[in-house]
Amino acid sequence: MTHSIAIIGASGYTGAELIRLIATHPGFEIKALAANSKAGQPLAAVFPHLRHLTLPDLVTWEQIDFDQIDLCFCALPHKTSQEVIAQLPASVKIVDLSADFRLRDPEAYAKWYGNPHSAPEMQKEAVYGLTEFYRDEISGARLVAGTGCNAATGQYILRPLIGAGVIDLDEIILDLQCGVSGAGRSLKENLLHAELSEGTNAYAVGGTHRHLGEFDQEFSAIAGRPVQIQFTPHLGPFNRGILATCYVKGDAATVHETLAKAYGSEPFVEVLPMGETPSTHHVRGSNFCHIGVTGDRISGRTIVVAALDNLTKGSSGQAIQNANLMLGQPETAGLMLAPCFP
Amino acid sequence: MTHSIAIIGASGYTGAELIRLIATHPGFEIKALAANSKAGQPLAAVFPHLRHLTLPDLVTWEQIDFDQIDLCFCALPHKTSQEVIAQLPASVKIVDLSADFRLRDPEAYAKWYGNPHSAPEMQKEAVYGLTEFYRDEISGARLVAGTGCNAATGQYILRPLIGAGVIDLDEIILDLQCGVSGAGRSLKENLLHAELSEGTNAYAVGGTHRHLGEFDQEFSAIAGRPVQIQFTPHLGPFNRGILATCYVKGDAATVHETLAKAYGSEPFVEVLPMGETPSTHHVRGSNFCHIGVTGDRISGRTIVVAALDNLTKGSSGQAIQNANLMLGQPETAGLMLAPCFP
Amino acid sequence: MTHSIAIIGASGYTGAELIRLIATHPGFEIKALAANSKAGQPLAAVFPHLRHLTLPDLVTWEQIDFDQIDLCFCALPHKTSQEVIAQLPASVKIVDLSADFRLRDPEAYAKWYGNPHSAPEMQKEAVYGLTEFYRDEISGARLVAGTGCNAATGQYILRPLIGAGVIDLDEIILDLQCGVSGAGRSLKENLLHAELSEGTNAYAVGGTHRHLGEFDQEFSAIAGRPVQIQFTPHLGPFNRGILATCYVKGDAATVHETLAKAYGSEPFVEVLPMGETPSTHHVRGSNFCHIGVTGDRISGRTIVVAALDNLTKGSSGQAIQNANLMLGQPETAGLMLAPCFP
Amino acid sequence: MTHSIAIIGASGYTGAELIRLIATHPGFEIKALAANSKAGQPLAAVFPHLRHLTLPDLVTWEQIDFDQIDLCFCALPHKTSQEVIAQLPASVKIVDLSADFRLRDPEAYAKWYGNPHSAPEMQKEAVYGLTEFYRDEISGARLVAGTGCNAATGQYILRPLIGAGVIDLDEIILDLQCGVSGAGRSLKENLLHAELSEGTNAYAVGGTHRHLGEFDQEFSAIAGRPVQIQFTPHLGPFNRGILATCYVKGDAATVHETLAKAYGSEPFVEVLPMGETPSTHHVRGSNFCHIGVTGDRISGRTIVVAALDNLTKGSSGQAIQNANLMLGQPETAGLMLAPCFP
Repeated sequence: MTHSIAIIGASGYTGAELIRLIATHPGFEIKALAANSKAGQPLAAVFPHLRHLTLPDLVTWEQIDFDQIDLCFCALPHKTSQEVIAQLPASVKIVDLSADFRLRDPEAYAKWYGNPHSAPEMQKEAVYGLTEFYRDEISGARLVAGTGCNAATGQYILRPLIGAGVIDLDEIILDLQCGVSGAGRSLKENLLHAELSEGTNAYAVGGTHRHLGEFDQEFSAIAGRPVQIQFTPHLGPFNRGILATCYVKGDAATVHETLAKAYGSEPFVEVLPMGETPSTHHVRGSNFCHIGVTGDRISGRTIVVAALDNLTKGSSGQAIQNANLMLGQPETAGLMLAPCFP
Repeated sequence: MTHSIAIIGASGYTGAELIRLIATHPGFEIKALAANSKAGQPLAAVFPHLRHLTLPDLVTWEQIDFDQIDLCFCALPHKTSQEVIAQLPASVKIVDLSADFRLRDPEAYAKWYGNPHSAPEMQKEAVYGLTEFYRDEISGARLVAGTGCNAATGQYILRPLIGAGVIDLDEIILDLQCGVSGAGRSLKENLLHAELSEGTNAYAVGGTHRHLGEFDQEFSAIAGRPVQIQFTPHLGPFNRGILATCYVKGDAATVHETLAKAYGSEPFVEVLPMGETPSTHHVRGSNFCHIGVTGDRISGRTIVVAALDNLTKGSSGQAIQNANLMLGQPETAGLMLAPCFP
Repeated sequence: MTHSIAIIGASGYTGAELIRLIATHPGFEIKALAANSKAGQPLAAVFPHLRHLTLPDLVTWEQIDFDQIDLCFCALPHKTSQEVIAQLPASVKIVDLSADFRLRDPEAYAKWYGNPHSAPEMQKEAVYGLTEFYRDEISGARLVAGTGCNAATGQYILRPLIGAGVIDLDEIILDLQCGVSGAGRSLKENLLHAELSEGTNAYAVGGTHRHLGEFDQEFSAIAGRPVQIQFTPHLGPFNRGILATCYVKGDAATVHETLAKAYGSEPFVEVLPMGETPSTHHVRGSNFCHIGVTGDRISGRTIVVAALDNLTKGSSGQAIQNANLMLGQPETAGLMLAPCFP
Repeated sequence: MTHSIAIIGASGYTGAELIRLIATHPGFEIKALAANSKAGQPLAAVFPHLRHLTLPDLVTWEQIDFDQIDLCFCALPHKTSQEVIAQLPASVKIVDLSADFRLRDPEAYAKWYGNPHSAPEMQKEAVYGLTEFYRDEISGARLVAGTGCNAATGQYILRPLIGAGVIDLDEIILDLQCGVSGAGRSLKENLLHAELSEGTNAYAVGGTHRHLGEFDQEFSAIAGRPVQIQFTPHLGPFNRGILATCYVKGDAATVHETLAKAYGSEPFVEVLPMGETPSTHHVRGSNFCHIGVTGDRISGRTIVVAALDNLTKGSSGQAIQNANLMLGQPETAGLMLAPCFP
């Protein structure tokens, strides 16, 4: 059976990635593409790499006839997203890729995003979209909140370890490099090729990155007590990919065993043999996440490294994985594309 | 129906690209992977990005049981390729990705490649693999010779124009930039990141690049008289993609019309509206070729720019397109992956 | 003797490059830095890589006390530049890096830049700043107009050849790749890392690039009759560097000899041995221009390739070379920095 | 006064960087360049970016007339370096850029480098070359051992903090990204552009990187008791630059104050205002090191980020800084080149 899909926010990178993946999805058909600032244009004017596809022209989201839509992906900036989603008909299932429904607590949202939430009642309804850990709730949900891309990466490392109680909860450091597409298609000086290529820098140092809101919420819930991690993102001169290097206190073999067991039957999360280290090169353009575990020369210290593609597993691939569950499609439908290397 | 596939030369980039594409091909199953220098290893040791696939371990090509193979892709270096192919059983269809069977004339081969051909009788049998122009012969062939990646790009521009007699045959300049994967996975100083990134240079200047052998053969055959073009390749600091900028003498509107007509029903070759210019960014990782035509301010001069991915449309995607024809699969099977942007 | 220098437009890339070079110039001292949109800020807030220098804070250009300034570099956008320069006191020597005084003919300026010139009388006074060819005029000038970076590259190849009458004037094709810093520090979608890295494209195809105004003016003057060339720039995924590949009709040995003779005593222009090819990697960050000549397999055709750094030899290095002449400094003062490789 | 310089190992990246810097050094003149595998060639054949310099051709190191040499830079691989240096006449001062004389303890050398030291008596004589901390010893030394590039970066952060006793010695994590030139000009698959660009990975995870030998030696000496840190390097897709992100337990203001005081009068080490973060972009091609300090949201945790150019401040620039001291030149001679941005 083919499901009818709409995408709101089709002119950004996560929108483009959704279309790229749906292009070869056997069970989804795109019926509407909205991008209010580009309404009236053919998609190929905004994303020439998709010109081979037969797709509807861009419209405003208000122009979409939602009666014919089974599921709507919402790839808008936060704040705008909650305003739009609050106006969508109840008959439409929604996967939101923004930050607007990730935090269940309106105060936490206000703290991290700087504005009060305008649809707090929907926050309660939303299911957090980290598929491997919320599969049942996602299958029955009307509104799924896609996770932050960094937040997804860190959680793939830490959720099983916190859940199994095999690491020190007060001594977790997550050091991470993110490719530039994670910042979206926005005109900022630091995203120019001339500024960003050929080097790297840290940003949001000291515990100020918004994805910490997700870490705090999820890790504290798993642990049953407040958990705060240290988290430093870096901006790397590559377009796709997140590499997270996580320092924990715990036994390396136990950490590896815990992760291997947690993901043993997962189609998209691969735990490498002990001592091997993943690379973003090897997940590029795919929905896979690779995780490697290595013990340190200092006894009781372990380093866990995870790699995924921020646009795919960290965002649009995850969104489709969730949509598959919500619509009764096979979970892996449209997502088995192999990474693009070199 | 599913066909059984072998790949010889699976440890190089074109081998990896074949596997990437076959991974989601509905009608092909990989039964054997050969890489003599890496025999005995799992493929994931050589290409960790393919670790999610269930594949046979690498063997030597001599270890392959060809009785169970319908078609064999041969992704070996030239010279080695002809030696191996000459020993394969007649029951196996072959798509060769090397240069060994591209030139029908043994003397031309010896001139461009510096060694006499060791299987000249097979040269006669081989069909030149530029799918759009040799479709019928390829469908019935046992041995198809994949084209050079630069040679494919130049021919997509020039074959229809030469065939239609709309450009001056003695005034053709093909200026081209090729991504580094075109040079293969070889340990050469000029292919190191530190040497190649952040800049560009021309190479094989002055009519010495081997792909000129293909241009000479094909263009002269179409024109019915000797045709020689000027061709300058450049090595660009990107991994995938060829951008060819071709200077011809002829009327721009006629050139555009000729190309639009030639490719009107082709699934993979897109002629852009007059005056638009393609980009390698927009074909990356895909089997598509984009072509743009612009008239010059000097009357009677026209610039045609073409973009494709050297590893896909220029090599492994083309090989699969040909294999589809040879095995009775739909020509586009496994090849409709959308480009990976950004 | 130390000369006092002001820079107007210090917050752009050519401004930064001027400061980088003057930082180790033995005869220049920066007395004022203007950037009207950033006035009041320390330079390090705009260009942290220059934080080790003791420099005046940014001011508006109107705040500069020109009585203490010997020479002012003007690195503003075109149109703004002419308006500002027209207001500067006559006692100040000026090197303009914009396009505003490159074209002597107000009509040509209006045609290529889309607006009438507001200081046409100063256009007459301005000396065209291609140092090697206007040395005497520059030495005595009050206002020198820096050339376009692409225009400089093409002229290093073609001026001696046109002047010596050794190539066909109606069959010149200049195919060129330019690094992204050539587009300045402007917030445009196509200059984002995610859009520009990992690929390439042509732009201003068909004879529409503004630097053709300079080519037309200069080449026609040298030839004594109208000369129009074909010129196609490409945007490459690197920050610094121009590689120009020029196709001419003429004898390769004669072309090489003509260029070698023209630049034999030049400190910054190096003609490589016949058949060698330059690379932008080898001039990066320096004021050098490398030129290589190769004959084609087609008799009578020659390819000339030139490489320079668009920010240095193509712009700010050239500007300082000219300022040296205007102030009686050694021409090479501050400019002998070796290229930064890798 | 001009000193006569020889460079052994001139065909590698650190050799090239030495020549680049000496090219504009007012007090050094290169009298001999050795590269045994390339002896007989002009340097421009190996490094075309230095072709504008008038330099002696490459020779074997045995061919150098050391009577006319004041100081010799030795940029050989470790193990080879100790063998060569042991044979140099006592009259020649030596700055070694290899790892051979960094570790004072022969057993520590054997452990980290896998072979016994062949000149252990010279190990005792060698002075560790981190200029800012060994200035007096370096000034009087005959043999100075340049530090590892990662080792330098980590020490700029940690030496003052360990010395002042303001951080927990058992809880230090150094997470670091290094540009590819740090791996030298070696033909390894993982250093190819196609393998390394567009992504990142960790390596030597778990306390196995050789530069830990230097950290252990130096930090333990400062602390007066054994200190072991955790250290994870990553390979980034850029040519020059190291960014070290260091997690310590200590008060942020105290950490900042300690570093600011330690480097207050240093010409090349800049401590940024509290809360600012450095970038490798801003030190590229220069001898500067930028250090930034930020407190974490978790009380008592501090993040210190440092950036330098591995080839300059991390290697060849440091070597020249030391040579300046050894020869009585001003310490900053030849080293004030501004970073090359963009």
